[in-house]
Amino acid sequence: MTNEPLDPSVFASLLRSSLSHWRQQGKKGVWIKLPIELVMLVEPAVKEGFIYHHAEPKYLMLVSWLPETANTIPANATHRVGIGAFVVNERNEVLVVQEKSGRFRGTGVWKFPTGVVDEGEDISDAAVREVKEETGVNAKFVELLAFRQSHKSFFDKSDLFFVCMLQPLSHDIQMQEREIEAAQWMPFEQYAAQPFVQGHDLLRYISDICSAKMEGRYTGFSPVPTVTGFSAKKTYLYMNGNVRTTGSSNDP
Amino acid sequence: MTNEPLDPSVFASLLRSSLSHWRQQGKKGVWIKLPIELVMLVEPAVKEGFIYHHAEPKYLMLVSWLPETANTIPANATHRVGIGAFVVNERNEVLVVQEKSGRFRGTGVWKFPTGVVDEGEDISDAAVREVKEETGVNAKFVELLAFRQSHKSFFDKSDLFFVCMLQPLSHDIQMQEREIEAAQWMPFEQYAAQPFVQGHDLLRYISDICSAKMEGRYTGFSPVPTVTGFSAKKTYLYMNGNVRTTGSSNDP
Repeated sequence: MTNEPLDPSVFASLLRSSLSHWRQQGKKGVWIKLPIELVMLVEPAVKEGFIYHHAEPKYLMLVSWLPETANTIPANATHRVGIGAFVVNERNEVLVVQEKSGRFRGTGVWKFPTGVVDEGEDISDAAVREVKEETGVNAKFVELLAFRQSHKSFFDKSDLFFVCMLQPLSHDIQMQEREIEAAQWMPFEQYAAQPFVQGHDLLRYISDICSAKMEGRYTGFSPVPTVTGFSAKKTYLYMNGNVRTTGSSNDP
Repeated sequence: MTNEPLDPSVFASLLRSSLSHWRQQGKKGVWIKLPIELVMLVEPAVKEGFIYHHAEPKYLMLVSWLPETANTIPANATHRVGIGAFVVNERNEVLVVQEKSGRFRGTGVWKFPTGVVDEGEDISDAAVREVKEETGVNAKFVELLAFRQSHKSFFDKSDLFFVCMLQPLSHDIQMQEREIEAAQWMPFEQYAAQPFVQGHDLLRYISDICSAKMEGRYTGFSPVPTVTGFSAKKTYLYMNGNVRTTGSSNDP
């Protein structure tokens, strides 16, 4: 590759002859990843029959399916993932915040710290991080209590929201001024009794689950470190901790 | 709007004056959604400082953050979601397949039916659909047993894989010829005894979980229909079914 920017008409002509060659070879899906600096090549690619597959801030991925057969190009990412953190201490006080923006703004509602799981981030790590960021409290992930899947939440994407239980490792609150209006430890009963919580099916369910968990009547999923079958990447399996597995290398 | 395609230079000039106006007004994030037919406007938008946010086959979304303050533009979707279906009948036979392509091809390994959850599709529905598509067997969703989160799986996106338990409503197998090489009902012990299953941490964990479930020693999450707090959209909360909730409208 030269550092000279490719002329769009030269690119179009090269692409056309390559496509013809690839068709003869029986190639199926052809991908073009264009850094945003090469934006001038997007139009010629589309004119040669490419469509968008996905984009990230710094690049656009285009694809063309050559044969007449069914297109087996894998779909783009479909879900955003969020967490809500139920941080409860040994006195049954729960860590709650009021947000400066969003739908809860100005409602006076006390809510669990919530946030978005970053790309490449484990759900359990995201819960710990968000609690720290919003309130300054250090906490340890204990259990995943439940999750909610909803649709059409953001540019038609779906959304998974995981309710996580955490154990606090520190008590003092240092509020993040940018997003958080107020933060405090509050008796769980007081949190649960809020009309807003009682008035919404989903929040009442979650509150009931947290209550049952505090009373020892509920079992969620615990993250068990393991590796994926093929690539041997480190990964977490979230499962009911009651099962004994046979001779795993992760057993103590 | 006229149906005449906008000239790129006219678009660039309009965009420039609009941006100047929006800056004065204190606007923050500016979005441009360009249908693929308007691909000729992508380059002028980028030249005016826009970056890509995301793309779907038929459009590209660009964004520009105007103020000096921290960019609060929400992230694009980060996860793909898949399911594996543990379909077990009253004789402890499990529905297994051999795939024609992918990593299991030619290995002789019998595996659970698996698939990708479509955009906008409930996890429980996806499990039922994939079983039907691959094997022709009708099944009913029972419980979510565990899930695995992994990273950098596909264009750097993360991946959530949900292990679902289903109860078969029919027995006869009608295999999907395109993707599936073979399908059968197999005694669970035989599935679990496969060296491939025993040799991989994750598959052995899942097999142990299924075994514990069949023996009544395991509780997963059940989907409870509810509505989201604000938009009142129908949604599922996946939770341990042991908890009694207080006076939900979804109770019988």
